[in-house]
Amino acid sequence: MTHYPAYRAAAVQAAPEYLDTPATIEKACRLIDEAAGNGAELIAFPEVFVSAYPYWNWTMTPVQGGPWFERLYRSAIDVPGPEVATLGAAAQAAGSTVVIGVNERDPHSMGTVYNTMLFIGPDGELLGAHRKLVPTWAEKLSWGCGDGSSLRVYDTPAGRLGGLACGENTNTLARFALLAQGEQVHVASYIALPVAPADYDMVEAIKTRAAAHSFEGKVFTVVACAALTPTIVETVAHDTGARELLQRPHSAFSGIFGPDGRLIGDGLIDEEGIVYADIDVSQEIQAKQMHDIIGHYNRFDVFSLTVHRDPKPAVTLTENDTPAGPPEPPAGITDHDVA
Amino acid sequence: MTHYPAYRAAAVQAAPEYLDTPATIEKACRLIDEAAGNGAELIAFPEVFVSAYPYWNWTMTPVQGGPWFERLYRSAIDVPGPEVATLGAAAQAAGSTVVIGVNERDPHSMGTVYNTMLFIGPDGELLGAHRKLVPTWAEKLSWGCGDGSSLRVYDTPAGRLGGLACGENTNTLARFALLAQGEQVHVASYIALPVAPADYDMVEAIKTRAAAHSFEGKVFTVVACAALTPTIVETVAHDTGARELLQRPHSAFSGIFGPDGRLIGDGLIDEEGIVYADIDVSQEIQAKQMHDIIGHYNRFDVFSLTVHRDPKPAVTLTENDTPAGPPEPPAGITDHDVA
Amino acid sequence: MTHYPAYRAAAVQAAPEYLDTPATIEKACRLIDEAAGNGAELIAFPEVFVSAYPYWNWTMTPVQGGPWFERLYRSAIDVPGPEVATLGAAAQAAGSTVVIGVNERDPHSMGTVYNTMLFIGPDGELLGAHRKLVPTWAEKLSWGCGDGSSLRVYDTPAGRLGGLACGENTNTLARFALLAQGEQVHVASYIALPVAPADYDMVEAIKTRAAAHSFEGKVFTVVACAALTPTIVETVAHDTGARELLQRPHSAFSGIFGPDGRLIGDGLIDEEGIVYADIDVSQEIQAKQMHDIIGHYNRFDVFSLTVHRDPKPAVTLTENDTPAGPPEPPAGITDHDVA
Amino acid sequence: MTHYPAYRAAAVQAAPEYLDTPATIEKACRLIDEAAGNGAELIAFPEVFVSAYPYWNWTMTPVQGGPWFERLYRSAIDVPGPEVATLGAAAQAAGSTVVIGVNERDPHSMGTVYNTMLFIGPDGELLGAHRKLVPTWAEKLSWGCGDGSSLRVYDTPAGRLGGLACGENTNTLARFALLAQGEQVHVASYIALPVAPADYDMVEAIKTRAAAHSFEGKVFTVVACAALTPTIVETVAHDTGARELLQRPHSAFSGIFGPDGRLIGDGLIDEEGIVYADIDVSQEIQAKQMHDIIGHYNRFDVFSLTVHRDPKPAVTLTENDTPAGPPEPPAGITDHDVA
Amino acid sequence: MTHYPAYRAAAVQAAPEYLDTPATIEKACRLIDEAAGNGAELIAFPEVFVSAYPYWNWTMTPVQGGPWFERLYRSAIDVPGPEVATLGAAAQAAGSTVVIGVNERDPHSMGTVYNTMLFIGPDGELLGAHRKLVPTWAEKLSWGCGDGSSLRVYDTPAGRLGGLACGENTNTLARFALLAQGEQVHVASYIALPVAPADYDMVEAIKTRAAAHSFEGKVFTVVACAALTPTIVETVAHDTGARELLQRPHSAFSGIFGPDGRLIGDGLIDEEGIVYADIDVSQEIQAKQMHDIIGHYNRFDVFSLTVHRDPKPAVTLTENDTPAGPPEPPAGITDHDVA
Amino acid sequence: MTHYPAYRAAAVQAAPEYLDTPATIEKACRLIDEAAGNGAELIAFPEVFVSAYPYWNWTMTPVQGGPWFERLYRSAIDVPGPEVATLGAAAQAAGSTVVIGVNERDPHSMGTVYNTMLFIGPDGELLGAHRKLVPTWAEKLSWGCGDGSSLRVYDTPAGRLGGLACGENTNTLARFALLAQGEQVHVASYIALPVAPADYDMVEAIKTRAAAHSFEGKVFTVVACAALTPTIVETVAHDTGARELLQRPHSAFSGIFGPDGRLIGDGLIDEEGIVYADIDVSQEIQAKQMHDIIGHYNRFDVFSLTVHRDPKPAVTLTENDTPAGPPEPPAGITDHDVA
Repeated sequence: MTHYPAYRAAAVQAAPEYLDTPATIEKACRLIDEAAGNGAELIAFPEVFVSAYPYWNWTMTPVQGGPWFERLYRSAIDVPGPEVATLGAAAQAAGSTVVIGVNERDPHSMGTVYNTMLFIGPDGELLGAHRKLVPTWAEKLSWGCGDGSSLRVYDTPAGRLGGLACGENTNTLARFALLAQGEQVHVASYIALPVAPADYDMVEAIKTRAAAHSFEGKVFTVVACAALTPTIVETVAHDTGARELLQRPHSAFSGIFGPDGRLIGDGLIDEEGIVYADIDVSQEIQAKQMHDIIGHYNRFDVFSLTVHRDPKPAVTLTENDTPAGPPEPPAGITDHDVA
Repeated sequence: MTHYPAYRAAAVQAAPEYLDTPATIEKACRLIDEAAGNGAELIAFPEVFVSAYPYWNWTMTPVQGGPWFERLYRSAIDVPGPEVATLGAAAQAAGSTVVIGVNERDPHSMGTVYNTMLFIGPDGELLGAHRKLVPTWAEKLSWGCGDGSSLRVYDTPAGRLGGLACGENTNTLARFALLAQGEQVHVASYIALPVAPADYDMVEAIKTRAAAHSFEGKVFTVVACAALTPTIVETVAHDTGARELLQRPHSAFSGIFGPDGRLIGDGLIDEEGIVYADIDVSQEIQAKQMHDIIGHYNRFDVFSLTVHRDPKPAVTLTENDTPAGPPEPPAGITDHDVA
Repeated sequence: MTHYPAYRAAAVQAAPEYLDTPATIEKACRLIDEAAGNGAELIAFPEVFVSAYPYWNWTMTPVQGGPWFERLYRSAIDVPGPEVATLGAAAQAAGSTVVIGVNERDPHSMGTVYNTMLFIGPDGELLGAHRKLVPTWAEKLSWGCGDGSSLRVYDTPAGRLGGLACGENTNTLARFALLAQGEQVHVASYIALPVAPADYDMVEAIKTRAAAHSFEGKVFTVVACAALTPTIVETVAHDTGARELLQRPHSAFSGIFGPDGRLIGDGLIDEEGIVYADIDVSQEIQAKQMHDIIGHYNRFDVFSLTVHRDPKPAVTLTENDTPAGPPEPPAGITDHDVA
Repeated sequence: MTHYPAYRAAAVQAAPEYLDTPATIEKACRLIDEAAGNGAELIAFPEVFVSAYPYWNWTMTPVQGGPWFERLYRSAIDVPGPEVATLGAAAQAAGSTVVIGVNERDPHSMGTVYNTMLFIGPDGELLGAHRKLVPTWAEKLSWGCGDGSSLRVYDTPAGRLGGLACGENTNTLARFALLAQGEQVHVASYIALPVAPADYDMVEAIKTRAAAHSFEGKVFTVVACAALTPTIVETVAHDTGARELLQRPHSAFSGIFGPDGRLIGDGLIDEEGIVYADIDVSQEIQAKQMHDIIGHYNRFDVFSLTVHRDPKPAVTLTENDTPAGPPEPPAGITDHDVA
Repeated sequence: MTHYPAYRAAAVQAAPEYLDTPATIEKACRLIDEAAGNGAELIAFPEVFVSAYPYWNWTMTPVQGGPWFERLYRSAIDVPGPEVATLGAAAQAAGSTVVIGVNERDPHSMGTVYNTMLFIGPDGELLGAHRKLVPTWAEKLSWGCGDGSSLRVYDTPAGRLGGLACGENTNTLARFALLAQGEQVHVASYIALPVAPADYDMVEAIKTRAAAHSFEGKVFTVVACAALTPTIVETVAHDTGARELLQRPHSAFSGIFGPDGRLIGDGLIDEEGIVYADIDVSQEIQAKQMHDIIGHYNRFDVFSLTVHRDPKPAVTLTENDTPAGPPEPPAGITDHDVA
Repeated sequence: MTHYPAYRAAAVQAAPEYLDTPATIEKACRLIDEAAGNGAELIAFPEVFVSAYPYWNWTMTPVQGGPWFERLYRSAIDVPGPEVATLGAAAQAAGSTVVIGVNERDPHSMGTVYNTMLFIGPDGELLGAHRKLVPTWAEKLSWGCGDGSSLRVYDTPAGRLGGLACGENTNTLARFALLAQGEQVHVASYIALPVAPADYDMVEAIKTRAAAHSFEGKVFTVVACAALTPTIVETVAHDTGARELLQRPHSAFSGIFGPDGRLIGDGLIDEEGIVYADIDVSQEIQAKQMHDIIGHYNRFDVFSLTVHRDPKPAVTLTENDTPAGPPEPPAGITDHDVA
């Protein structure tokens, strides 16, 4: 830990080509190219940018929304797989580290889709994939739960990089699990959420969590949130109530927070765009002098946290006395684990 | 897992030319040809169709039945071997995936016969062979037990295909071991069983298990059961009691079940014939939304199942520091295993 | 295992006094009294009989249904607690073993309710409480997930007794985990589910699972399913569509299945009532001669299943070098575990 | 957990009679009386209100500040002790729950003072005392570290009450340790901190942490921060630079945050005063429906946190083979611990 | 291994009170008393002496024999359990080591009975229980298979003692597994087997195996075989053929073999009685000078045999991170294992 | 394994022309011709028939016997080599499979002689050579130890053929290693052993082992033992005591055992001669129905035996990073190994 990267980061606030995975991958590649053209060495995309957030779970009853699940499943991708390869090629062409959310098909079950964040290195290599641990409320109707195996921090040219999806940033223990691995830069990916109860202000909810994570951990937090387009609203809204709900403003926010918990420059609300900020990892050193919760300011004689990272496959198949592991280990993933 | 086959499947309910292996192989080839002519891309045959079920175990005492064992042994086949090659050629000519039960001689011991299911691809290749893990009750007098090495699901043009023989379909763990590998279509092979205790209704017993496997796993289950002919009865029945028992009706059932656990179309009871049904693997997607026991609806932090698939040979011979494996690995078997 | 109870069992198909816990507890006590009066020594109640199934999750959007969660939470009970004590007193007065579903409040969090089955002995003692491991589809909007600590079989005068709630009976591994502990009598509790997709036939779905569990394990299965009353429909239905959906017939089934997988006597569809059947545990002995999947017919050298029954508390507090356990262990629960 | 208190809470922003413990105790009693007069049932005081924050650690060199330690030590109090009794009497008179920070003398060592929060019930009883686990930066020159034994939540008429001092509110694990015990209302006590590095904005730092704790845990957070008076500045400032630093504004903030992470009403910056807000614990129920990190939204199969609450005395004296316990157990403290 | 016991051993050739467990236990105790009275310090009983060998498997068809299984199950015993305690008390009274065969009920399953050998020390303690690994031919209809956990040699006053049941003495590897643990005295328990095919001479088959084991291992082998009584024949024979078969002579043999493979004194054929012989373990020393297959005469660089002694329970239940083991560990068994 | 040979086998009991290798080879060829003339298709010769058993090791002290080693070494042969070729020609002329014992010179060392069994096909080809693994007791003074590379079973017209020399037939694991490879006919070669301790009865010792191997494996065992001639006695006996010892009768036995462990026809004791018996491999099938220790009657989940068959040369010479293999692979040996 003797290198303290300083570089420009980009948070992409954009909408997918809804449920159209090839077109969305193309759009993602275009945005990587644009952000890299503006000097970004770390480019963060929203949650499940590829290629749909299941809004129907919030606006329809489960029975109404049922058939939409198949559309989600069919638009989801395999990890690794051809779409990941295309994104990797774009990252490599840009020379940037890319974090992007996708819907991932379970390698064996036709009934389980994961909300997954991909971490791709500037050499185009897939560093890892994090499946969201618990979907939030209505999202439970569409996504399965990941296991602890993906709670990892990756050593990248953009610093020690971790990430959590949306509501996971509320989870004190998940956040600490990444900080404790030496996380220097955190990507918090979100989707636009106009469909929550009326008193839920998504912009504030995003800011509170980003500020807290940056302040507690003395890290940079890059928030990349999805935007909603009229096309998406039109696709999903099945009646007037749903259409109105989906158009509620102040539902998306992207921006970059410093290790003092404050927003750097401006954030972007609702609209599509790319926010840039300069990150200097060495600024975290002095900030930690006051409170270093993974070091001198904590008490590990009092608190002991264990994170169970063993994969939990549906079945373990052993051959010749050694476990063959889960049926389809994502062979393309290099373990940049700190342990 | 981006291809969801849709095709016609056939369940053959037929009797072998009892203990006459060449004639039975010929009959099997004829039935493959007929079913393929009717459009079947997956053709399932009964348990030990080649070429006898040892009914004497149920109707005679072990001492009376003893000499029949040698007849069984002599009619059994080697896997791989010439009979398998003939079946492969028929499958290739038909362009269909074939699952068929055979009596298999142990490659080394003259005293051990296995109840084996063969999985043959439409290119005529032997994909794998599954030796029944535990014979049922009186069957223990004739067959040895397989090991876990054959608990596999094969990637075929007919979808991810697995199978279990007769009573194995009662074994919760064996069934789950296949489902967890992503099984999409399950073949359950049976024999006509008129010889069980009087209150055992074989037709209901078959239906209950097929419905359960389909419902739990949200898969298609193709049940292929053997029929009994007067010739077989005459061959095996050594007295009036045995003859009457062997003629008890409602002892065989073949049919195809959908992912909702319900029979598709009609089933066939007792008589010889071929049942057809259209399988569309993509129907399993929505069915899994309610319960996906290999994905979102299970708890692999609570349940961890290991399937020990290492072969258990009588001896392992090593040469030059690496195990030479069991004496005669069935070299013709291509491992289409998922791991 | 030298005692094989023979007695009369009752499956109660009834509706709660919706969201009115005191009135429902009173109704439960009345029904216990009635069933015991008719000779029942084991009385099974439906899933979450105390005191509401959250139908709104299926008929409303999550945002519409949000405020209903608080009603559910307030009507939920503590385990142990005064309501449990009242039910215990009724069981003791009746001299019957009682299994009943309740909504249980998490002892610490105000945001988590569990779908819990209570097992109460004829001495009124709370034997154990099983929190449903994974709620089904729309139910995920209301209930948290239990851990493995409650996968237990209890030694009762009604035999070795286990139970699973609703969709858990689809879970092959959960079912086997109980069977492997020597389960002799299984209680499967359900709710009336008229609100599933149109092609989902709840009566068939219940029967398939009960028959499978009984047949595979050679056990008796007592199915107790909730009924729906016009009052409940009126309470929950917020529009015409919901009202129609909630009134769909063929959505509830109660009955008792024998170790051959067949229904004993008649079942009850949709209407309130109590179904009785005579259970004779010793009938399971001969049924197992054919297939005993927890004994002679399985292969535990091939399949090894571990059930992680350690509780998973939010925090473990240690005092004086020994863990104090989760903050509020349900002290009233006597562990009748086999281990 | 069937009672959800609703009441008025008060956060006292005030300065002690610096290093004059009797006068400060008197002032505290007066403020308790005032707040209770305005209807407050929970009254929170700042960190080490009794009776000095050691500003000299920040403005003098350690050698210069050395003699001041003895003044701090002499003004510190025993817990329990007469000052605690006086505060208890005031609480009892007011009928309010009181949380207040004090400098506590170690019962045995003359060189160790703790930064301690007292929790006093409306019956005047001392519920517990929490010694700050790690002092912040320059504070390490004056205070010793507490152990885990005081990480407790108390069952009070004001709800399940926990608290942390100043920088401890940055500690993700300390905060979670309280939330996991079912904390409903959190007291965060602070001191005015004009003496930190220039880019440290104490008001923002307080708000960020309070918002995060409330939002993550869906709890109310009562922030009570000390004020600075000219007298204190005059007492401590030994030169012009120190005096200027001590007078830097925007260094203190008190206020009350709701379970959505937002400030209720106005906060108070720098000036002495009392902030009031109405707390309704039942509002936390619906807020948890989205994310309940101690319940349905967490993954305790992945994260297991142990809090070692065993006291760590300087010596454990055993008699007759059984430990006699720590030398002087604070006998006046009733353990309202949840375990 | 510095003590070489010399003592008198007894091989009991006797018939049980068929299917009458209390009476058989009483007879066993009487025989222990008699043999000890004649100086025997090691007393070996036949296979499944308590309290029936399932002859019906050989003389009836499985369907005819089906109901007899329940009689067997009901007459079987729990290990440990009251019958074991009674036998232990008799051994203690006699001051003799006792080996005796019993039918053992599986602790969980009502469908599985084991053919088990009990090893009881002269202090009445149950040293261990060995479940026959594979039942022979027709026996498979009644008994389940043990696992490797019971392949143990016990350190007793009668020397290092091992044992195998009936056909297991044919199993080269099972025999070696005991020898390799330093077995000095081997008990081979058998039943009278008049019911095998006509060319099977049970007396010769027993002698061949006993001689081989003694000769190969240079150990004493105590053969205890059951006798048949007219009562048993009458009980089991359902027709003339069966009666004649059951009365076939030359079907039982008991005797004691020396380390040179030769019978010491006379053996006993068919009739009930007790055979005595003097054992002097030190005679094995010189016999091993020629061939010591577990030492100097073997080649463990060429042959490596692993015996998998881990129990194979139907389920492993873990609590608090450590496996709770199989549901009902036979707590009364002391592990005298050599490892 | 579809061919079950039936033919006449011959066991030659004869003495070599002691230490005169050319004459002994000639005698061997004569005996092959004679036996084939009598219809024998398998002809087994004694251990080290070519051309001396080193009796001096038993009758002289090692120092006395020392010079005799050189005589042994000089009379030993190379394998392959001219003497082997001559024997092959005889076998080919006879059209019989021949097994014969020889003293084999180590290809590199002048101080090491092996006790080797040659397996020669009816085409005269050398199928393989087995070096005795461990010489017995006094034999250790003359012979080196073989390695595991020769533990093979050969597919011959006489069936699957294996063999072990003398004391190796005591070695449970060596015997099983051959059985497990599907051995159908076993050759056990011995020498006349009048020189063992007085209580050692060589005839009984041979019979016990042959019966055991046949009975356990359900195979035919052909025992060929050497005879002693007055010439040999005269040659080796250096004093009266040695002469008397060497003339002790009942020291040699040849005969052929069936798969039931019983001798077929008569055996031959001490005298020279040839014993014939008819072998029908298919008789093994039914014999295995009772116990098949390499198949249905064993438990390879419990016992796993590895036989390390890699050659153990004095040096392995590698060239260019890949091992060049053992110095002089016996190139004339065709590997008919099953693997």
